Amino acid sequence: MSDLSGPLRSGGVIGVFGGGQLGRMLALAAAPLGLQTHIFCQSRDEPATHVTPLVTTAAFDDLDAIAAFADACDVITTEFENVPVEALTAAAEQCPVAPSSMALRVAQDRVTEKTFISNLGLPVAAFAAVDTAAELVAASQEIARPGIVKTRRFGYDGKGQVAVPAEVGLAAASDAITALSSAPAILEAFVDFDHEISAIVVRNRAGDVVAYDTPRNDHRDGILHTSTVPSLTPARLAQQAVEHATTIADALDYVGVLAVEFFVVDGAELVVNEIAPRVHNSGHWTTDACNVSQFENHMRAVAGWPLGAPERHSNATMTNLIGDEIDGIAIWAQRGDVAVHDYGKGEARPGRKMGHVTELQPLS
Amino acid sequence: MSDLSGPLRSGGVIGVFGGGQLGRMLALAAAPLGLQTHIFCQSRDEPATHVTPLVTTAAFDDLDAIAAFADACDVITTEFENVPVEALTAAAEQCPVAPSSMALRVAQDRVTEKTFISNLGLPVAAFAAVDTAAELVAASQEIARPGIVKTRRFGYDGKGQVAVPAEVGLAAASDAITALSSAPAILEAFVDFDHEISAIVVRNRAGDVVAYDTPRNDHRDGILHTSTVPSLTPARLAQQAVEHATTIADALDYVGVLAVEFFVVDGAELVVNEIAPRVHNSGHWTTDACNVSQFENHMRAVAGWPLGAPERHSNATMTNLIGDEIDGIAIWAQRGDVAVHDYGKGEARPGRKMGHVTELQPLS
Repeated sequence: MSDLSGPLRSGGVIGVFGGGQLGRMLALAAAPLGLQTHIFCQSRDEPATHVTPLVTTAAFDDLDAIAAFADACDVITTEFENVPVEALTAAAEQCPVAPSSMALRVAQDRVTEKTFISNLGLPVAAFAAVDTAAELVAASQEIARPGIVKTRRFGYDGKGQVAVPAEVGLAAASDAITALSSAPAILEAFVDFDHEISAIVVRNRAGDVVAYDTPRNDHRDGILHTSTVPSLTPARLAQQAVEHATTIADALDYVGVLAVEFFVVDGAELVVNEIAPRVHNSGHWTTDACNVSQFENHMRAVAGWPLGAPERHSNATMTNLIGDEIDGIAIWAQRGDVAVHDYGKGEARPGRKMGHVTELQPLS
Repeated sequence: MSDLSGPLRSGGVIGVFGGGQLGRMLALAAAPLGLQTHIFCQSRDEPATHVTPLVTTAAFDDLDAIAAFADACDVITTEFENVPVEALTAAAEQCPVAPSSMALRVAQDRVTEKTFISNLGLPVAAFAAVDTAAELVAASQEIARPGIVKTRRFGYDGKGQVAVPAEVGLAAASDAITALSSAPAILEAFVDFDHEISAIVVRNRAGDVVAYDTPRNDHRDGILHTSTVPSLTPARLAQQAVEHATTIADALDYVGVLAVEFFVVDGAELVVNEIAPRVHNSGHWTTDACNVSQFENHMRAVAGWPLGAPERHSNATMTNLIGDEIDGIAIWAQRGDVAVHDYGKGEARPGRKMGHVTELQPLS
């Protein structure tokens, strides 16, 4: 089944592949629309399973479980980009799926992703696929700038990355490839950027697109630390970021929230860093600072609803609570200008995203 | 057990007696605090059961089920005032309960309620308990004004009420008592009011109280139609309403959201109409127009957390969607300045509260 016959009505069920905090916040946003959420995930402990009675616990390669899941849902979406394409394809035989497996296929492989974006005429860092140390040496000579070798697949929060100098030698190249467990890799030229912004756009089945304000994103130890709106990025660049993201969404015939991360270089130009075919950590402030959040708008798009307005009623700074920073939530909760979000994960492992807070100020 | 030993921590479970839309919105508000909600209700169809995996389906007089429910919860609250006091008392033997059974006892009987409020020195309409036609005739002569005979218990949305003239005769009194199925009743003097406002206050275990802006409430066919903030009520009266509600909350050693409805008479004075020991329909706009909603603040109070700030970031008009008005929600959803809330109830019976919408405007 390729599409919904019309807007999903009250009591309709949206399936979500993945049970993390994004799935949890999607489910919480679907409820006021009168829609139920069915979570497909691998463990009963995942945070999205706490906010809906409809849960399937199975592996992503369990095609029987996927068939039963698809049978129980009116439409299916995903909360993380590494859902196996085969799972989506299997589900799509019974039930509309959005975003499409094509969008996930593009986003799952850094070489495919950068090639796709580059072919749209959008700016990306110089890159080359490198599977061996010899290929890395050759690519490094061609790019002739310091770079970062990354695994093509399954990297997140700075994991699976090694910095290399310009024109790397064979020994260092070997070390880098080994550090990545000899997984298929990509060499990307290092971009000397001022800061990062992200475009968060939502596209529905009718091709309508709305865009949230582009936050400025600051990282700590490779993990998003804060997202701030307004970003103080020149309006021309922010507008361009939204246009680029819209170009990508249109090219993918995308349905749902698409986030695109950009480097701002010399205060004057953008370079696409990567895309995320899902709701995005840098858009979490929309829950507290907008009438309709990225989560609700994703579910609206997936459910065939009209999109909600993305305008802000407040300025906002979102701060992630990583690992045992979650213990500070009681202090944050004492502040009247702060909205707290605890994902209800049990164990505060180092580097694990446990929650976030949004500091709100009147519009400036 | 009479109290929590400290703030409820991530993963803690709040039990809710009742499975209606208020329980649903309480559960949705508890989730961002990292807290789970366990719904105790009589049917698997109730709307709160769609937003949590923790549900007990049993009758309110099933003491075994209540014991198991209390055992599974860290603290228990209610979403409607007609939970049998015996159920609360039984639960309270195992688990802290807020608000207390005393608060519900007062609110469940109009004579007890009006006596309690009057004894605090707060203004109420003249009233008398009337169990028979003869008592109604006598009370009517004493009050000597047109009035309304209401059942003492279980009335809501204008149900269980009959208007009577001043100094009603025995035949008409008999008809009125019969119309109320001879249930124990109260005669209240009719109040010729300009409009109604409500105070929505939250009190936590430490005795801290915060108050939302007092909405103006307009009814249609005895059911709340709209609540509007700002209410355009003179600031002195709005302030007085909050003070009266705080007096009542303090007197009950109340924990949670307490709503108090007031008649505004001659633009100059307040008369208490009734109290609701729970989150209230006239406070639904707080979800969309405030950083911390009445639902979150109720759960914060019950869970022993600090209270959140009740300030508005927007002006708001909440409109209930009654019966088949819910079918219009797709039209409302097209407006960028509207937040929609569909409770996911299956059947749109006439007079049934199916959802609400909040129209938002920038602060004036």
